[in-house]
Amino acid sequence: MKVSVVGLGPGGGADMTGRARAALERCELLVGYTAYIDLVKDQFPDKELLSTGMRREVDRCRAAVEAAAAGRRVAVVCSGDPGVYGMASLVYEVAQEYPPIEIEVIPGITAACGGAAVLGAPLTHDFAVISLSDLLTPWEKIEARLAGAAAADFVLCLYNPASRSRPDYLKRACDILLRHKAPETLCGTVRSIGRPGETARLCTLAELGEAEVDMFTTVFVGNSQTRNINGKMVTPRGYLQREG
Amino acid sequence: MKVSVVGLGPGGGADMTGRARAALERCELLVGYTAYIDLVKDQFPDKELLSTGMRREVDRCRAAVEAAAAGRRVAVVCSGDPGVYGMASLVYEVAQEYPPIEIEVIPGITAACGGAAVLGAPLTHDFAVISLSDLLTPWEKIEARLAGAAAADFVLCLYNPASRSRPDYLKRACDILLRHKAPETLCGTVRSIGRPGETARLCTLAELGEAEVDMFTTVFVGNSQTRNINGKMVTPRGYLQREG
Repeated sequence: MKVSVVGLGPGGGADMTGRARAALERCELLVGYTAYIDLVKDQFPDKELLSTGMRREVDRCRAAVEAAAAGRRVAVVCSGDPGVYGMASLVYEVAQEYPPIEIEVIPGITAACGGAAVLGAPLTHDFAVISLSDLLTPWEKIEARLAGAAAADFVLCLYNPASRSRPDYLKRACDILLRHKAPETLCGTVRSIGRPGETARLCTLAELGEAEVDMFTTVFVGNSQTRNINGKMVTPRGYLQREG
Repeated sequence: MKVSVVGLGPGGGADMTGRARAALERCELLVGYTAYIDLVKDQFPDKELLSTGMRREVDRCRAAVEAAAAGRRVAVVCSGDPGVYGMASLVYEVAQEYPPIEIEVIPGITAACGGAAVLGAPLTHDFAVISLSDLLTPWEKIEARLAGAAAADFVLCLYNPASRSRPDYLKRACDILLRHKAPETLCGTVRSIGRPGETARLCTLAELGEAEVDMFTTVFVGNSQTRNINGKMVTPRGYLQREG
């Protein structure tokens, strides 16, 4: 009948939108990665649950689309925004294999926006969002995007900066960024945005390569104007500078 | 006492988060651009209001910080996310001129995420967000960012694609993008995201320069993999392609 691909925001709690909450209330079946189902199952106790482990993305979306094609009202839950490295595109792709169903995407607060709010205001000018995971993207393409964005003085937001199998990827990314950005460029890291144990740190680009990051960390690299105001990472939009 | 810089999401209604709504309920004084105050004043009827017209951003933030320094609980309301071309950075900058106050940023659904959900799933791979407004940024810098992002095959999301004084800026941007992206690259425009009269259209990059856009439109330009699936703009993340 219908699949709603729903963004929970960073923690699945107060940062969820009213529209996301209403969609979860309306659905019969919640489908998602186990950790995301765990974030919401207590808030929506009377739902049927279908959770699968990591790397089972295609199975999960097929199950959701199959249930909808069989007449059920389904919500695929994603952390953050399903449209940013989430399941939204895969649901559309998989649905081509089945009879027509209705699909809607309900946006959520993605880690770029949620993490920026914790750090201060790093993204108030042009920015680029790049995932450092090379599971689905050749590393050469990631390198080209890092270099292109750094050369054009974008603020950068990096998702998936490290994992157990990729402990040195942030260091490799920093080496590329340092060819185009000054070593004193202000950077920030946020871990567990909107969840218990949320932590945020500022450092310079020269120091960022050695920062402790993992798969729960989002990384921000400033542009040439970004600065530290009382411990916050702030990229001026230019209003005050226009006033002179 | 405290300034909360609050994102209303695209329409100030169902896409607002629980945290944003709670912050507006707690505050005494709502400060913002007239059009954004109008979006929420009926939902929070017992608040004092301070609204100012366009281009009064610095005055607005000074008034908010002054009221907080005088002991009041203030919310600065922004459409979308205050951290993306919003007031978050300016509040931090202006607050340096006053005695210390507490500042918090409460993120909202920005037009990139809200518009993407309307179009389908264009942002499910690396993307760059660029404002075409040259009120605060030299056009040469905007051009360099368009070229850098296009050359590295980012999906692009363009804010402020046109205004009465800049009717041809999207055309100028497309001319730059066409040096690096194929003319058949899938593009999309969304107007009045989450508001009455919301409209979405798909076209090619060759056609985008002639598309009807205004200051209420957000523009999306696909990467080399973005495609039209049953009228939706979808950028594959690569899960199905990995399956082979």
